[in-house]
Amino acid sequence: MKIIVINGPNLNMLGARDHHQYGTESLENLESELKRNFEDVDFVFVQSNLEGEIINFIQGASDNYDALIINPAGYSHTSVAIRDSLEICKIPKIEVHLSNISDREDFRSKSITASKTNGYISGFKKYSYFAAVYLAKILIANK
Amino acid sequence: MKIIVINGPNLNMLGARDHHQYGTESLENLESELKRNFEDVDFVFVQSNLEGEIINFIQGASDNYDALIINPAGYSHTSVAIRDSLEICKIPKIEVHLSNISDREDFRSKSITASKTNGYISGFKKYSYFAAVYLAKILIANK
Amino acid sequence: MKIIVINGPNLNMLGARDHHQYGTESLENLESELKRNFEDVDFVFVQSNLEGEIINFIQGASDNYDALIINPAGYSHTSVAIRDSLEICKIPKIEVHLSNISDREDFRSKSITASKTNGYISGFKKYSYFAAVYLAKILIANK
Amino acid sequence: MKIIVINGPNLNMLGARDHHQYGTESLENLESELKRNFEDVDFVFVQSNLEGEIINFIQGASDNYDALIINPAGYSHTSVAIRDSLEICKIPKIEVHLSNISDREDFRSKSITASKTNGYISGFKKYSYFAAVYLAKILIANK
Amino acid sequence: MKIIVINGPNLNMLGARDHHQYGTESLENLESELKRNFEDVDFVFVQSNLEGEIINFIQGASDNYDALIINPAGYSHTSVAIRDSLEICKIPKIEVHLSNISDREDFRSKSITASKTNGYISGFKKYSYFAAVYLAKILIANK
Amino acid sequence: MKIIVINGPNLNMLGARDHHQYGTESLENLESELKRNFEDVDFVFVQSNLEGEIINFIQGASDNYDALIINPAGYSHTSVAIRDSLEICKIPKIEVHLSNISDREDFRSKSITASKTNGYISGFKKYSYFAAVYLAKILIANK
Amino acid sequence: MKIIVINGPNLNMLGARDHHQYGTESLENLESELKRNFEDVDFVFVQSNLEGEIINFIQGASDNYDALIINPAGYSHTSVAIRDSLEICKIPKIEVHLSNISDREDFRSKSITASKTNGYISGFKKYSYFAAVYLAKILIANK
Amino acid sequence: MKIIVINGPNLNMLGARDHHQYGTESLENLESELKRNFEDVDFVFVQSNLEGEIINFIQGASDNYDALIINPAGYSHTSVAIRDSLEICKIPKIEVHLSNISDREDFRSKSITASKTNGYISGFKKYSYFAAVYLAKILIANK
Amino acid sequence: MKIIVINGPNLNMLGARDHHQYGTESLENLESELKRNFEDVDFVFVQSNLEGEIINFIQGASDNYDALIINPAGYSHTSVAIRDSLEICKIPKIEVHLSNISDREDFRSKSITASKTNGYISGFKKYSYFAAVYLAKILIANK
Amino acid sequence: MKIIVINGPNLNMLGARDHHQYGTESLENLESELKRNFEDVDFVFVQSNLEGEIINFIQGASDNYDALIINPAGYSHTSVAIRDSLEICKIPKIEVHLSNISDREDFRSKSITASKTNGYISGFKKYSYFAAVYLAKILIANK
Amino acid sequence: MKIIVINGPNLNMLGARDHHQYGTESLENLESELKRNFEDVDFVFVQSNLEGEIINFIQGASDNYDALIINPAGYSHTSVAIRDSLEICKIPKIEVHLSNISDREDFRSKSITASKTNGYISGFKKYSYFAAVYLAKILIANK
Amino acid sequence: MKIIVINGPNLNMLGARDHHQYGTESLENLESELKRNFEDVDFVFVQSNLEGEIINFIQGASDNYDALIINPAGYSHTSVAIRDSLEICKIPKIEVHLSNISDREDFRSKSITASKTNGYISGFKKYSYFAAVYLAKILIANK
Repeated sequence: MKIIVINGPNLNMLGARDHHQYGTESLENLESELKRNFEDVDFVFVQSNLEGEIINFIQGASDNYDALIINPAGYSHTSVAIRDSLEICKIPKIEVHLSNISDREDFRSKSITASKTNGYISGFKKYSYFAAVYLAKILIANK
Repeated sequence: MKIIVINGPNLNMLGARDHHQYGTESLENLESELKRNFEDVDFVFVQSNLEGEIINFIQGASDNYDALIINPAGYSHTSVAIRDSLEICKIPKIEVHLSNISDREDFRSKSITASKTNGYISGFKKYSYFAAVYLAKILIANK
Repeated sequence: MKIIVINGPNLNMLGARDHHQYGTESLENLESELKRNFEDVDFVFVQSNLEGEIINFIQGASDNYDALIINPAGYSHTSVAIRDSLEICKIPKIEVHLSNISDREDFRSKSITASKTNGYISGFKKYSYFAAVYLAKILIANK
Repeated sequence: MKIIVINGPNLNMLGARDHHQYGTESLENLESELKRNFEDVDFVFVQSNLEGEIINFIQGASDNYDALIINPAGYSHTSVAIRDSLEICKIPKIEVHLSNISDREDFRSKSITASKTNGYISGFKKYSYFAAVYLAKILIANK
Repeated sequence: MKIIVINGPNLNMLGARDHHQYGTESLENLESELKRNFEDVDFVFVQSNLEGEIINFIQGASDNYDALIINPAGYSHTSVAIRDSLEICKIPKIEVHLSNISDREDFRSKSITASKTNGYISGFKKYSYFAAVYLAKILIANK
Repeated sequence: MKIIVINGPNLNMLGARDHHQYGTESLENLESELKRNFEDVDFVFVQSNLEGEIINFIQGASDNYDALIINPAGYSHTSVAIRDSLEICKIPKIEVHLSNISDREDFRSKSITASKTNGYISGFKKYSYFAAVYLAKILIANK
Repeated sequence: MKIIVINGPNLNMLGARDHHQYGTESLENLESELKRNFEDVDFVFVQSNLEGEIINFIQGASDNYDALIINPAGYSHTSVAIRDSLEICKIPKIEVHLSNISDREDFRSKSITASKTNGYISGFKKYSYFAAVYLAKILIANK
Repeated sequence: MKIIVINGPNLNMLGARDHHQYGTESLENLESELKRNFEDVDFVFVQSNLEGEIINFIQGASDNYDALIINPAGYSHTSVAIRDSLEICKIPKIEVHLSNISDREDFRSKSITASKTNGYISGFKKYSYFAAVYLAKILIANK
Repeated sequence: MKIIVINGPNLNMLGARDHHQYGTESLENLESELKRNFEDVDFVFVQSNLEGEIINFIQGASDNYDALIINPAGYSHTSVAIRDSLEICKIPKIEVHLSNISDREDFRSKSITASKTNGYISGFKKYSYFAAVYLAKILIANK
Repeated sequence: MKIIVINGPNLNMLGARDHHQYGTESLENLESELKRNFEDVDFVFVQSNLEGEIINFIQGASDNYDALIINPAGYSHTSVAIRDSLEICKIPKIEVHLSNISDREDFRSKSITASKTNGYISGFKKYSYFAAVYLAKILIANK
Repeated sequence: MKIIVINGPNLNMLGARDHHQYGTESLENLESELKRNFEDVDFVFVQSNLEGEIINFIQGASDNYDALIINPAGYSHTSVAIRDSLEICKIPKIEVHLSNISDREDFRSKSITASKTNGYISGFKKYSYFAAVYLAKILIANK
Repeated sequence: MKIIVINGPNLNMLGARDHHQYGTESLENLESELKRNFEDVDFVFVQSNLEGEIINFIQGASDNYDALIINPAGYSHTSVAIRDSLEICKIPKIEVHLSNISDREDFRSKSITASKTNGYISGFKKYSYFAAVYLAKILIANK
């Protein structure tokens, strides 16, 4: 079972961000924990600060992975282009947010990219990713 | 481990609702499946169509349960009163939605109650509840 | 032919309300007049000030009545939950308003519940109900 | 009893419009059915695609008819001028819509002309007109 | 002199709420203090989390009390139905808020229920109620 | 000195409109009074309920009159097309309103046609037209 | 016949302002021309940059003048306080603007003060004042 | 191949309008050029300032022409009625604008009529029409 | 105990304002009544129509008074500057309104100055001031 | 004659997108067809998912091509940066959209980039590009 | 080189304001530091809480100073009148803010006065003034 | 003292842009002038049209520079992602704009990135950068 985890802008700086919103973990630790907790999953982790590269990752996912997990971070709220690329992608797709986006600035309260995924999870810090993998496995099994 | 699952208005009619948005399961089946999949959890399931009764359930939860899972349904988008009762409640709280609320009518795109939970999950039909229990167990373990 | 007439909050006080908007009739008189004018109809009249009880009435209507007439009153403009329960209900449904809601405060100009009925009638005081019964009979006959 | 029925733009094409919203009837059939069902009413039917001609019809109605039924169609949502002419007209006035305007595009959800009629009926396809005549007769009798 | 004090949702949890906004008092203490400070007043205290029950209390007040004091809490900002019931009630009516609603979240800045009371008091924690009783006595005396 | 006075929809019904807003005069009387008070002016008075006919009048004005006075009535607030025709017209142009449009419904508070005239006058009932002629004469003299 | 002409902020700099919008005249010249053209009027001219002083002028006008002409300039669009003082003042009141406020920045398109005058005139540069005096004389004569 | 070209309000004044937005051509020249450049097309050119006449033209087009080209001008931004008539019309339909409507006043930035055509072309002055004919021929050929 | 009562624009005209909103009392009478009813309080009453003078009063209050009562009148809805001066002032601060601002024009429904006081009282005519003094005494006693 | 055709995000996936909106063609086919139909044009085709690379293409176009055709896709609705780069570019510029953007989601109804091109074409699927080339040739010839 | 520094409402209380937003300095210290750091500049410092006095200062500046530095404080966000006076003033004009207005309440995020200055500086506490003087000297030198 | 100056999209074209808004200088000249005027500063200049590359520059700045100066250009108004990267960066940060963004199109009036810098400077053309360096030096010295 192959799952690609796409992390958007500034998530490479995870450990250095506001702990109250994002938790204390670095991105590397988060990735290690996912591997350790889901040993039956073959993960590929990618991160980019570039909107277009994220689109490239999504476009390439359909043929190579069983599911896609994405944290579009700051692009969740503005990127019609990422939304369009998710709409084209036909494998199970799950959006995650570390922080609870319904409890932050107004401009973060709506994700325009989430509408073109199966669903989304927000607010459980690193465990948002855990739940995403948990759900991805179910979605793959039920395809 | 005791978890209360609070379902809001019209969820007692689950099997009769739009299958594309809500899946085909009845509420009873959903509850049975949760019990079967999480045998270590002691579930209490309640449902009400009354905003105030839901508030009563939330107010009573802190002293009697380890975590609270809530699907406020139509009240998610309008109820300041439920939001206030969630704010007072101090155990782990998770909001779930069967449908992907970011992909429906505009008035459903924002949950005002979710902002006073730990986080929320939307779009995975019955599996939104599965993921909520999965996360509730982690949150309880990490308290 | 069985028709349920559901009246929402404050309609039990009908005779005491602003006569210019609501007419001079009490709710009891209105109900008597309906019975007298439509002797072939078997009416059940219910009224509640509780949003959730109104949902209960709607949920119970499908199996027991040929048509449903509802005046959601103050809940017309705010209740996503009543809207959802109307969407599930599959018998002919007609919304009525005593006053002309397009000629009052801005927050009354749009009914979010009406969109999930067959149609609605607004502004004819007690005769809005007369027309609703008149139409309900046609809708039942044409099912 | 003389009633004028004023139909606005594109209603002359009724049979050719979206059947889901407007029903399958042509305007001619609709008019015939009204005559057949209300034999005690002396109907005059007029239709125009021109906003100003509709105003002319309304201005001429007070002296010549006992009641006015109007479907302003596309002008319902934009015409301050028709609204003003309805305000001046002192006979019973009823607005009708074939489709349920609360369940369509946002720009159709509010009728600015309806506020200057006695009331309005929306969503019952050709039966909206039936109910309008039914109510007009009551309003005339109660003048 | 009989005064009914109606407390809305979550006020039964008063002592457990945010002290900065609501003060430290429990609802019971608040009620005791009111009795002790206004010995000439015959108080009836009711509280409910249900919008419709609050409407029931208001509807019953006209015939049984000299004045009504209400804290609609979370319903202040959304309930057209409570607003309508207050409009019908003809005894002196005063709305109170413990916190200063003009200094909190945007959705709390406007009370739609207050517009149908004589006036409202906001921000003085338990003393908002004191001032309400002080004013109720004046209003009763000046009737 | 030739001046065309263009009156828009419903102004032919002037005497029958709300006296508080529009005064008591009929349109004929208003026209007679203007002639009597400004004997040096050669007036042409036209009125139409049709937006397009008003555009025709405006298009024809440049070559035949020294100034244009217009009361677009209900079209003031919605007609981009009249606005465009006024922009093309190169003689002095003055917009008048009988009522004070800044003190009425919100949708009347802004005239989109006035922006393409030299200026406008609002609120002086029939004397708005007097002032318009007074100003037209000055504008013609100063060309 | 005594008329007070109140000029608001920056009108003392009239000659130095944008000629396209305001004309080329200085305020002194404008005042002289008014006196020369209306010899039967006893004018008092005041100007202030202070909102409160303008309120003082308005409050003092009722007892001492037959009519009031005001150009609130920048305060037209923001001053609830000037609006309130105009509402109290009971003599004929006319608002003038040199420029056509419907053809400028959005924030100038609506005057909140004009709603509490008899009416207003906008866009004729210095001749707006001429027309205001012309109308004031009529209003005084018709009182 | 028969194509009807419908021009809306003020386009009969084309040569007299703002050259920067509309070019220097008169409507007659534009029509001649179209004929000269597309000799295989049998053109019918109509123009009207009346919204309703334009609807009449559209309603008559389906049976008599192979395609329809329309410049609704000022009605593009306000006319629900023209939009409805275009929706009914089943031949290829192309909307054109001489000026680039995305670079002008805000109220021109959206065409509500264009949504019921095959597509639209904006900004190329007279060449917008050329491209429309070029496309109409392709659409007809591909029917 | 020294309390300053600051009255904003137009309150010097109190007796002459709309009695339905403001009561019948003049400002002088109101001040006398306060003195007579609260003999233990040393009042200073100031009034100004100038926003800046009101700021001066507020800035001077901290060192000289035990509490501040303010009716900012028309400035409540627009003055960021008064809001800022209230924020700096550290003695108990109470805002009062004679009328019920939640039941008037939209632009009066929110007070931006009240957010920087302890709380506010609205709608009890002269008794709003009585309650303010009553509360000021409590706040001073509890400091 | 050299023309650069710049395609934005997700257009490399053209064949895989919603056929109803975008047609059935792949991007390669579309490019081939353009070459075959316009043999006198020397085309360069570029595509990128990266906003910044698209800006690079635009910046490089002025010196190397006679005209620029761009489909900014998802960036049309959000990219101030692409808009700025188009403003700088001085050769003929044409924006194309495959789908009719006025008939889709609200956030697609306005292109902020189109305002800095000569004009735009929307809705004709692959033929939007054909018309763009047709117009580009005219614009080049008329420079 | 003469520079006038105009400080708006509440800046005379600078030392007493929120240190996090405004720094710890008093206004006197700030002025002294400016003099000490820019010995070649002849400063005049004025402060007023009155909008109109600030306008007076601006109107007087053109003839007497080489440049104007202004902190309109609370008036930045509401004063059309100050904006108009800045537009008239023809010497170099710089607006300063101590706090970063883009990071505070929504109503502070836009300065309507800044648009009529050469430019503005926000967020550097007392050093905003330093930079303003630094820039004023450059602007004067480059006139 | 090492300062990185990050220039966003289209600033590499500086000399070719609208001189009224941006001045006449090329980016190279601007950089040379900064070096010549601040010889004690060790500058690194970078420019990119790619949002993600700008984020890369910001992420890399904390460890390598004493301060960061950024002109996000078109991304200032839309990029949540750049805003987030600035929030993480802990060295002094200053945003600059060549033009006065409060005096341009509405969509430029608010910078969402500026809120996460120390402050910003707008409107002084190349001198905005001068002032930024001047301030950066002060901020570094005061760290």
